[in-house]
Amino acid sequence: MAVVTILGAGAMGAALTTPALAAGNEVRLWGTWLDDDILAALRAGRPHPRIDVPIDQAAVLFDSGDLAAALDGAELVILAISSDGVVDVLRRAAPHLRPGLPLLVTTKGFGYDPDGKVGLLPPLLRAVMPGELADGCPIVAIGGPCKANEVAVGRPTAAVFGCADVGVAERAAALLGTEVYRLATTDDVDGIEASAAMKNVYAIALGIADGLAETGGEPWHNLKAATFAQAATEMQRLATALGGRAETAVGLAGVGDLEVTGLSGRNKVYGARIGRGEPATAALDEMVAAGQTVEGVAAARFAAELAEQRALDGLPLLGAITEVLAGAEEPAARITAAVLPAGR
Amino acid sequence: MAVVTILGAGAMGAALTTPALAAGNEVRLWGTWLDDDILAALRAGRPHPRIDVPIDQAAVLFDSGDLAAALDGAELVILAISSDGVVDVLRRAAPHLRPGLPLLVTTKGFGYDPDGKVGLLPPLLRAVMPGELADGCPIVAIGGPCKANEVAVGRPTAAVFGCADVGVAERAAALLGTEVYRLATTDDVDGIEASAAMKNVYAIALGIADGLAETGGEPWHNLKAATFAQAATEMQRLATALGGRAETAVGLAGVGDLEVTGLSGRNKVYGARIGRGEPATAALDEMVAAGQTVEGVAAARFAAELAEQRALDGLPLLGAITEVLAGAEEPAARITAAVLPAGR
Repeated sequence: MAVVTILGAGAMGAALTTPALAAGNEVRLWGTWLDDDILAALRAGRPHPRIDVPIDQAAVLFDSGDLAAALDGAELVILAISSDGVVDVLRRAAPHLRPGLPLLVTTKGFGYDPDGKVGLLPPLLRAVMPGELADGCPIVAIGGPCKANEVAVGRPTAAVFGCADVGVAERAAALLGTEVYRLATTDDVDGIEASAAMKNVYAIALGIADGLAETGGEPWHNLKAATFAQAATEMQRLATALGGRAETAVGLAGVGDLEVTGLSGRNKVYGARIGRGEPATAALDEMVAAGQTVEGVAAARFAAELAEQRALDGLPLLGAITEVLAGAEEPAARITAAVLPAGR
Repeated sequence: MAVVTILGAGAMGAALTTPALAAGNEVRLWGTWLDDDILAALRAGRPHPRIDVPIDQAAVLFDSGDLAAALDGAELVILAISSDGVVDVLRRAAPHLRPGLPLLVTTKGFGYDPDGKVGLLPPLLRAVMPGELADGCPIVAIGGPCKANEVAVGRPTAAVFGCADVGVAERAAALLGTEVYRLATTDDVDGIEASAAMKNVYAIALGIADGLAETGGEPWHNLKAATFAQAATEMQRLATALGGRAETAVGLAGVGDLEVTGLSGRNKVYGARIGRGEPATAALDEMVAAGQTVEGVAAARFAAELAEQRALDGLPLLGAITEVLAGAEEPAARITAAVLPAGR
């Protein structure tokens, strides 16, 4: 039993209270300044507004102003903040952290390092922490197919925790794992992070095949599956280019998470709207206006820039998605051309 | 332009008339003694009864008694026969084949070699041909996500042709490839065959997660995705154990075909019935009685025997599927235990 503090009361942060409590921990859920409506709903005993699932009231709720209290005595901190906000939250939390405290990070995506190079999140997070924390707070990456609503209700879920010091990942897994939230561990942080960020990008392309099917009334399963195979190939290339291992991209954090992200979620839904014929930019504007972040859009831009900075080859699907997101005409034809073999 | 003879007028055989004609060939479609109703429907201008899609009347139809005429002058033969019947058909066709004629095989599965060892189809097919053909007729394996109905109507499809002599695969691909039926080539016949046979097995497990969702009204996406990732891992193990390459199992013929087979088809449908709570044996009996072959069932038995003969490790999902097909209780719990990481 340990004190587990979850920063961020959105879908995934709240969902993780379920295994964290089931594993016997004291669980604290801190909401950002954007989460006030969520905490109000939970305090009133209503379901979590984002995932429509009740959250066990044994999780102690902390408002955004009570960050110090939420972190006091924490033995494991889970950063469950959107990629937009994670750096800001970590900066505010840093004064209340101590060396040796593991940070489990559910946030996925890319960012810029001080030299303007695109990179994965863990080094960027370390860069905003004071020196003794940057060296002393091990970052644990989470990968694997985890829809938050299913984690919250305790449906069987597999995830993988990754840390350069695999012993830290194993201790975090020992604190959070249950019979139904089961955890593998690895030292391949880069492989997890690259796969997790890119699956959101490629899910947009998977959604396009679904949108074509919705429009025509007939499945485009062959195209969706060819897209999946090409995405798996490109995820392996990006994982290795970023210092990870190809095998991670074809495990739980890679094809496993790609499978679930292609079944449901905002990235797939956005792709389906494009596949149905909506202009990519207008459809995105509508989703953003409705408060629906499509994480794959920003990740696609970063990944395209990264590919250019590092002169990476063999990423035609990423190239096609980038064009489609920029408003290119005939999006389905572009995706198709990128995923079918070049020969005849 | 070449004479292409397709043996078997079932879903895939008939579907391949579309790219074969579009690529400019003279196309002959020969029906087995079980295909009389299909040929009658096509001759009457009705859609193909298995896939409900019209077949271009430019394909010349041959009845089962006209095998010699169908094969006379053929420059490429496509064997599109179920795994039950392929050896029998090849034996009948052999007198009309000549050395050097490539045999493109859509059939997937396993069989027994003369020593009672479980093996892939190509060597078993070679074993039933006279010596000069066995050495002289190169076998080309087909892998990749190809639902027959989509191939038949010309929806975008990616496949991979594999032959020990990759030049033969390339020539076959040049004869059959079109703008929408696009072909990669490889020399990894064993990797294609192993992946193609096993995807039917693992699709049953993917279907179980769908069946659980149908029953409860809530998705079990995390379980389906964890099942997918474990299937990808085991397909790589089986591909390499059978002499193929792991990369083939994470390409079009592996995860690509697994994706499409988990989206629709009889193997997935059978798994969904089990997931909904129907006894595995009774559900299979009903499907067989309705004329619906579930190819993954026989393949699972062969694969389990193969794993035992070769003392293969690391195939818990195959083991769980084998138990479920044999009528084990709590099938969903067995699949879940097999695909979630062992640790907590």
